[in-house]
Amino acid sequence: MSSQDQGKQHPVPYTREQMQTTLWSWQYTFRHGQCDPAGIVYTPEFFNVFNHAIEHWFEESLGLSYYDILGPRQIGLGYVSASAEFFTPVLMGEEVEIFVQIREIGGKSYSLELNAFKGDREALRGKFTTVTTSLETHSSIKIPADIRMALSGYGKS
Amino acid sequence: MSSQDQGKQHPVPYTREQMQTTLWSWQYTFRHGQCDPAGIVYTPEFFNVFNHAIEHWFEESLGLSYYDILGPRQIGLGYVSASAEFFTPVLMGEEVEIFVQIREIGGKSYSLELNAFKGDREALRGKFTTVTTSLETHSSIKIPADIRMALSGYGKS
Amino acid sequence: MSSQDQGKQHPVPYTREQMQTTLWSWQYTFRHGQCDPAGIVYTPEFFNVFNHAIEHWFEESLGLSYYDILGPRQIGLGYVSASAEFFTPVLMGEEVEIFVQIREIGGKSYSLELNAFKGDREALRGKFTTVTTSLETHSSIKIPADIRMALSGYGKS
Amino acid sequence: MSSQDQGKQHPVPYTREQMQTTLWSWQYTFRHGQCDPAGIVYTPEFFNVFNHAIEHWFEESLGLSYYDILGPRQIGLGYVSASAEFFTPVLMGEEVEIFVQIREIGGKSYSLELNAFKGDREALRGKFTTVTTSLETHSSIKIPADIRMALSGYGKS
Repeated sequence: MSSQDQGKQHPVPYTREQMQTTLWSWQYTFRHGQCDPAGIVYTPEFFNVFNHAIEHWFEESLGLSYYDILGPRQIGLGYVSASAEFFTPVLMGEEVEIFVQIREIGGKSYSLELNAFKGDREALRGKFTTVTTSLETHSSIKIPADIRMALSGYGKS
Repeated sequence: MSSQDQGKQHPVPYTREQMQTTLWSWQYTFRHGQCDPAGIVYTPEFFNVFNHAIEHWFEESLGLSYYDILGPRQIGLGYVSASAEFFTPVLMGEEVEIFVQIREIGGKSYSLELNAFKGDREALRGKFTTVTTSLETHSSIKIPADIRMALSGYGKS
Repeated sequence: MSSQDQGKQHPVPYTREQMQTTLWSWQYTFRHGQCDPAGIVYTPEFFNVFNHAIEHWFEESLGLSYYDILGPRQIGLGYVSASAEFFTPVLMGEEVEIFVQIREIGGKSYSLELNAFKGDREALRGKFTTVTTSLETHSSIKIPADIRMALSGYGKS
Repeated sequence: MSSQDQGKQHPVPYTREQMQTTLWSWQYTFRHGQCDPAGIVYTPEFFNVFNHAIEHWFEESLGLSYYDILGPRQIGLGYVSASAEFFTPVLMGEEVEIFVQIREIGGKSYSLELNAFKGDREALRGKFTTVTTSLETHSSIKIPADIRMALSGYGKS
């Protein structure tokens, strides 16, 4: 996939040295069932794996139980927007390293950017804006204090 | 999921009467395995179903075989970007009607917008920019003539 | 996939005329993202589509709301076993017709067989044994009366 | 899910001490998007994760590149049968340890058993019979010598 046609709007992929050293990252190998008949990862699988990365990051980096939040605490972490930009195709059996960055923390929402590297170069980039909600009413709520504190402290060595 | 926090950037959902009557649409019911423990459709599944809608639209509306394009013709229809905005959660067993609109036709790329309605109101909106590529070289190619013609004629009376 | 090696245990595919005319069936086209780099449907996707077929069959043939059962009624329809036998590969863009048969109705469980035809010949066969459970306690319960009645009446012209 | 109803056919789950110490195993945490509205892993996701386990086992234990086999070597490792027996539900966020056992090596096929443990007790068991095929002709071929040798040596300390 090439982006000649996309003009100015399409972002430039990062190189690995541009990534802050304090960011959490996760290595993931794409399996054959995640790839389409062209041998390339099927787009929705990237969103799936980005979700897995975020859950992993909650547990391992933020020290919060994603499942306790969604389950007993009945707090929703759904998206108001999700997007990805693709720079290079990822093939069956290839490994990526996914970095998580926080782009914004609002009153009732926060925005993450995920940068997936193949070797030294960013292969794709995901952006997710989450609104914290009550799973009983499905309406938005203030980001709970423990989540806000964990988010605010992320990436500060 | 509510969007109070999102300010001006978040688009306003369409009502059904705002959709052009010449647009192709497809009805789809979300099944229980596509929903998460909150009973809400899992985000990557929306991207999956949008892909199914696009393939269906190729066959049924454009009169082109998606599988002939990807298979024997070795033409890739991969994305340089894919995004979605979510207005209202979709629950297990709920039906949506997905409309396809073409937003742009370039030399080597085209952009689609998919509007998924729950009843009279847009529940979510997807945007996909495809670059046509050679599956042998993975570099971009001009949109093949038959695809360009079909895209150009779509939605006209 | 050929079965020379499997000897006697591997069943013989049905032809279409062997299927009872009173059985409910559903047509489904496999999309490119459900296929692997060999262009063949990825095995777990067959289980996924069989699940969709069963949900559809509940609604359309049995006249029961699968989502009302799992949701408000808090009755689980999980499997104690699930299996499939594969006779012929199914490729991207191919359509199958899936027939549902009931193989057994017990006190707290029932067994379904799903026969997926490609043209005139069975391409694969799934078997699912469901135990009805309480979703509060996760222990088995008697098949609720309305479900039992619907199952008992199925396929009787 | 309980199995009172299943009588003699339903197997008895293993305890961890019954597993040979020379078997390869892999730890996997089920994420929220793999679970259904009951908070339980959606059945097809077990087949998906079993496939990931097998690919991982090829690479890590057998020392064979699954992607080289399917890609450049054009050898199919598709299933003639796939099945699972479920003993205990697996919930969102729970970790399983999956052991791989070889049950049979034939001329053109081999059978694997996968035992997924939650703590000390087997939660589910998968069985997969693979026929080696030519991806050009889709007909069965003898198990290639390197794969046969790797399979034969597995689990022998």
